[in-house]
Amino acid sequence: MNVLVVNCGSSSLKYQLINSETEKVLAKGLCERIGIDGRLVYQKSGLDKEISELDMPTHKQAIQFVLDALVNDKTGAIKELSEIDAVGHRVVHGGEKFSSSTLLTPEVLKAIEECNDLAPLHNPANLIGINACKELMPNTPMVGVFDTAFHQTMPEKAYLYGLPYKYYEKYKVRRYGFHGTSHSFVSKRTAEFLGLDINNSKIIVAHLGNGASVSAVLNGKSVDTSMGLTPLEGLVMGTRSGDIDPAIMEFIAKKENLSIEGVMNVLNKDSGIHGISGKSSDFRDIRAGAAEGDKRCQAAMDVFSYKVAKYIGSYVAAMNGVDAIAFTAGIGENVGKLRKSIMSYFDYLGVKMNDEVNLATMAEEALISTEDSKVKVCVIPTNEELAICRETVALVK
Amino acid sequence: MNVLVVNCGSSSLKYQLINSETEKVLAKGLCERIGIDGRLVYQKSGLDKEISELDMPTHKQAIQFVLDALVNDKTGAIKELSEIDAVGHRVVHGGEKFSSSTLLTPEVLKAIEECNDLAPLHNPANLIGINACKELMPNTPMVGVFDTAFHQTMPEKAYLYGLPYKYYEKYKVRRYGFHGTSHSFVSKRTAEFLGLDINNSKIIVAHLGNGASVSAVLNGKSVDTSMGLTPLEGLVMGTRSGDIDPAIMEFIAKKENLSIEGVMNVLNKDSGIHGISGKSSDFRDIRAGAAEGDKRCQAAMDVFSYKVAKYIGSYVAAMNGVDAIAFTAGIGENVGKLRKSIMSYFDYLGVKMNDEVNLATMAEEALISTEDSKVKVCVIPTNEELAICRETVALVK
Repeated sequence: MNVLVVNCGSSSLKYQLINSETEKVLAKGLCERIGIDGRLVYQKSGLDKEISELDMPTHKQAIQFVLDALVNDKTGAIKELSEIDAVGHRVVHGGEKFSSSTLLTPEVLKAIEECNDLAPLHNPANLIGINACKELMPNTPMVGVFDTAFHQTMPEKAYLYGLPYKYYEKYKVRRYGFHGTSHSFVSKRTAEFLGLDINNSKIIVAHLGNGASVSAVLNGKSVDTSMGLTPLEGLVMGTRSGDIDPAIMEFIAKKENLSIEGVMNVLNKDSGIHGISGKSSDFRDIRAGAAEGDKRCQAAMDVFSYKVAKYIGSYVAAMNGVDAIAFTAGIGENVGKLRKSIMSYFDYLGVKMNDEVNLATMAEEALISTEDSKVKVCVIPTNEELAICRETVALVK
Repeated sequence: MNVLVVNCGSSSLKYQLINSETEKVLAKGLCERIGIDGRLVYQKSGLDKEISELDMPTHKQAIQFVLDALVNDKTGAIKELSEIDAVGHRVVHGGEKFSSSTLLTPEVLKAIEECNDLAPLHNPANLIGINACKELMPNTPMVGVFDTAFHQTMPEKAYLYGLPYKYYEKYKVRRYGFHGTSHSFVSKRTAEFLGLDINNSKIIVAHLGNGASVSAVLNGKSVDTSMGLTPLEGLVMGTRSGDIDPAIMEFIAKKENLSIEGVMNVLNKDSGIHGISGKSSDFRDIRAGAAEGDKRCQAAMDVFSYKVAKYIGSYVAAMNGVDAIAFTAGIGENVGKLRKSIMSYFDYLGVKMNDEVNLATMAEEALISTEDSKVKVCVIPTNEELAICRETVALVK
């Protein structure tokens, strides 16, 4: 079965065409600057990237270009559109309505729309992408895979905030968590990789990318995660603040003469690693800066590692122990020094790192603790597109 | 030496007269409704409480009534004011300027005033109390004891937020922490009580009262704590939210048509245990409600315990282990069931509770884990007034 995986943002769209039997990517790419001017990046497996400047006034037009490229005579991955058996769409927020992936029926689309105010930047864009695909491929089954779904197993004690209960009743203000597709994929793969029985396992996943979150996965189910109502809470990220004293918002609003929207903008776009270092949101730049003796780059790295370690420590308590800790996503998969720095807090758990393997591991599955480490530590590359492909196949075959 | 300990709020003032040699309280009480009408509560040790309705337009007038009561012919604790050898004042916020208690010179008072915008409700009131005492006892040495001072040993990785660094440089936005006098007193006493070498110890103090905070104390020094720039951050408290996704503030402001001040008011006064339960901010009411099957009371207790456990877990990571965990303040000292619920998360550390002792212990020093528990757990009643008395004596004798 061939599955087209679509991740649609407000002005961009990423896609992969995956063969679900071989799990190979047949073609992938993205559309950028939709509604502005437009650019298509397309790459058939084994060939070079093709970049075309194209006029993309709408998402429908962008998806039409993607489909044209996929069936193109010269570099197309398939001969005709009927070879696309299903489309899997990433949907950011499923609220409390969706605890698993689902076929995108008209009723489901309405329910997703009702979650729009929980993710006003993301869900409307996801819906535009879904509707555009439906128009162009009206007979192809479509599946929605939610970033929040995996975390819907969290118990009340983990998802309730210390807020007036009416905010939960009236507006569904609670912890949802994100990166669920990744946390699900990586926790399952961690159990397989280490030969753990997933139904009797305590796994912590550290998804460390430009956005970053940690989850506690008990017997295969998410029981806590660091992101909250929105993806702003939790770890210090590339440009996002993560946890702060809520009183800081009023303090900064008054000092800087900003509205609440102005403060939110700072917390989402000018904070995190970028804010502390004053240099970059990219960890590579920060590491280079720290290596040259830049103290604020060093501080940004120290704050980042310490915060990840504290979240891991708190989730060990949440599950009353831990069998395995998995690192994933851009930073988690590639930066051995950072993994070492984070794991240096956990001698008390009997963690013993294999420094040689850890420092050499980039973007590949590896046990980076010693064989006799009481808690196993590993790198498990995430693959959200493949996870969406699998979820889609499970619902349409 | 006799030390008058003063804790001055905006419309109230608590006091104790303590003999520093015996550490006995000679008299204590409070003034309420200063600037409104006025009421003096006075109690000489061993005698009944006296309550007098008195006109208290100013703090100076309130303190005059306290001094009058202390030297009163019938129930006074001393004969004349010269028997008060020093006054110790609680000061809430010392910013980065004060890492220990200090004699209140004119320069110091100016420096405290410069911290006013970090604690606009508390510091100005503290200063009013200090100035009133200075006018009435111009020749008596005065000492300021700061809630924030003990936490000034936190490393940068613990006190820096993931915010633009300029906010730290320009406005000193960082984690300060509060309840420092209590965390200092209890951690020292924990080491003594358990026979630990304080210079080689890892202690976590859970100060659980209507306001609540946890601290990590490594070798006698605070290395992290749950309150932040203000006392709003951290645990779920009586009426305070503690940690939330910062994005919730904008979300609630829009939904409820509130200003940022309006949201802050909700987070400080209508949230926490009170907000979740919809019943009370008093833990006794919540326990009673839960016992009667009230699900939201049960949820409030579960959220509270879980959050404390997660902070303890994160501080075990922060110190790479823990020797002892101490419970203190109203809830921490008195609610054995809650201590049991919190400690139920820590089997992985080798914690073994002594249930019989734990459930029987109220407001007294006790080892509530077993003797062979890998991590010792104890109840250590806090005594901030005695701590302020000791700090004062150390500076004036």
